Amino acid sequence: MSVPVHYLNQLPSSGWLKRQLGLPAQTSLLIIFDRCLKGKGSFTSWVKQFPHRYGVAAGEKLKAVEHFSQHVLRLNKVVGELPTSQLVVVAVGGGSVGDFAGFFASVYKRGVTLVHVPSTWLAAIDSAHGGKTGLNLGGIKNQIGTFHSGSLIVVCRELLATQDRAHHRAAFAELFKVALLSGGTLYRATCQLVDLSTDSLWKVLPLAVTAKNKIVARDPLEKRGDRQLLNLGHTVGHVLEAFYQLPHGQAVALGLKFAVEWSRSLGKVSQRASEQIQAELEVRLDLSQVEKQLHRRKRLPTITLTRLLLRDKKLSGAGQVVFVFPEKVGRVRRQRVAVAAIVREMRRQGWK
Amino acid sequence: MSVPVHYLNQLPSSGWLKRQLGLPAQTSLLIIFDRCLKGKGSFTSWVKQFPHRYGVAAGEKLKAVEHFSQHVLRLNKVVGELPTSQLVVVAVGGGSVGDFAGFFASVYKRGVTLVHVPSTWLAAIDSAHGGKTGLNLGGIKNQIGTFHSGSLIVVCRELLATQDRAHHRAAFAELFKVALLSGGTLYRATCQLVDLSTDSLWKVLPLAVTAKNKIVARDPLEKRGDRQLLNLGHTVGHVLEAFYQLPHGQAVALGLKFAVEWSRSLGKVSQRASEQIQAELEVRLDLSQVEKQLHRRKRLPTITLTRLLLRDKKLSGAGQVVFVFPEKVGRVRRQRVAVAAIVREMRRQGWK
Repeated sequence: MSVPVHYLNQLPSSGWLKRQLGLPAQTSLLIIFDRCLKGKGSFTSWVKQFPHRYGVAAGEKLKAVEHFSQHVLRLNKVVGELPTSQLVVVAVGGGSVGDFAGFFASVYKRGVTLVHVPSTWLAAIDSAHGGKTGLNLGGIKNQIGTFHSGSLIVVCRELLATQDRAHHRAAFAELFKVALLSGGTLYRATCQLVDLSTDSLWKVLPLAVTAKNKIVARDPLEKRGDRQLLNLGHTVGHVLEAFYQLPHGQAVALGLKFAVEWSRSLGKVSQRASEQIQAELEVRLDLSQVEKQLHRRKRLPTITLTRLLLRDKKLSGAGQVVFVFPEKVGRVRRQRVAVAAIVREMRRQGWK
Repeated sequence: MSVPVHYLNQLPSSGWLKRQLGLPAQTSLLIIFDRCLKGKGSFTSWVKQFPHRYGVAAGEKLKAVEHFSQHVLRLNKVVGELPTSQLVVVAVGGGSVGDFAGFFASVYKRGVTLVHVPSTWLAAIDSAHGGKTGLNLGGIKNQIGTFHSGSLIVVCRELLATQDRAHHRAAFAELFKVALLSGGTLYRATCQLVDLSTDSLWKVLPLAVTAKNKIVARDPLEKRGDRQLLNLGHTVGHVLEAFYQLPHGQAVALGLKFAVEWSRSLGKVSQRASEQIQAELEVRLDLSQVEKQLHRRKRLPTITLTRLLLRDKKLSGAGQVVFVFPEKVGRVRRQRVAVAAIVREMRRQGWK
């Protein structure tokens, strides 16, 4: 079940990928890539070595189930008459490209081999790992999906280095989440990041990936519930993401802040620990400033809030969801809470 | 991995299904059913006990990936805000309904529990077992699909008894295929069927299901190749099905006859065994008559034949497929053959 992750400076050759997968030279790689990567670093010349390739416009629209059949018809043409046993899908892009290509690989001819080459920090830290794929249904994220692990994950510094600084900040939320969950060396290393430069993130990345994979390995299909811990910060994060159309990373950061503050007000985490945790987020992401702007932008009606919370895939019974409360660095607890209680707490924390 | 199969005279109550699944009483069952069943036996009153139900028009159109998003949007409305953990999809219908509902269950919110209640003999004998789901892409069958086993399979005599005799004949091909693969008691029982009445088929059904499940258990995800044995008769069967728009069962019967005759001409099966096997098919399905009619209907151009054969999911290399040759009752052998060799053999056997 453990998936090999490689950290390379440059993009790997087609031959190297096949050797890592233990596949014969005649294997065909189908590259599904984010068109935005064209012209970045050596990407354009690299991608040309692959005869089977499919460029996509990254983003949530790519994941709309309504467009899936058109994509598959086109992908089917690109693939031609290759034998399934000799086909490998290589997803080169951020979260949306990985989710889309991963879903395609999991259902095309009942499943083909998948490789992830994440091109964003968010994907490199989080979404490329753990085997979740997803499509959106009627604008709601990941209502359709599968568990289909990459057989290989290749993280290339060259690709990540082309990202602008706003994306580094977005990735920090998921990095901090997994650090908070696992504590120890990873949490210390994360708090010691003096900036969010490529160098800093590259250093801490392998620790974060290992920590996430450790949690996933306990519950790969999210059956026993251990994997739900990774939902820390996401219950309210997803609501804010959908309502304010925020980038995922920023929404998760706000959701983390919310969870810590709720834990504090319930006495589940000490005042001191909660202040320390919140300060780490604040100093890097200016969350108070972000909150103020959002509060001014539009009000969150209770009916909308409730509807958004009831979409949660962690819904555990009539009007209840599983919420992850931080207790201290390295320890959280899952607890069923009523959707109405989350709404009340959001009001208390200033989300009007 | 072994899936419980129940053989009941009547349709089961909602409470019985939940108890068999070990699920609490508040679990919701989403019934996806073939609309043709309305008015048949006690079906109409039975289905009304389920608040969540979705009637579909059975057939290959239901499986078109192009329509999938519309179905899912409607199904999502039927489901409403039920927690995923409390949702069970129950597929009541033949092969197309089972394939469609099974695929839906495998990808909806990354997978929910599935129950099959096959309403056709073909589904009861074959497609409801083994965990394959499928959608069609651009008119090509099962190009999209997953492996998602039913957690429970309930075969109801009451439903099967409503089928007309033509469907009994269609089901015989898959029954005979698995009998030929496994030999022994099942083969003897199959050859002793004096007619294809509900009584006869009902008696032999559990043996056939057990035999298929035994083969599936050796290779549930079709990785080691053992499961490819179930493809006996299907390589050419699928081609005839697509080209002449034949019912699946009839096409498989013709494909079985083809495979036995090819084996005989290559000396892989004895003259005597091949004659005995072919006679069993002939006496029940009048295959020579069917062939004559098809030969008169339209010619099969080589270019079309080749294209149809190259669609095969058992494609194993450039222009080669894995073909299953019968050697004697209870023994077959897989062998890579060139698509061109299949075309030549089809010509020799009179498919012009």
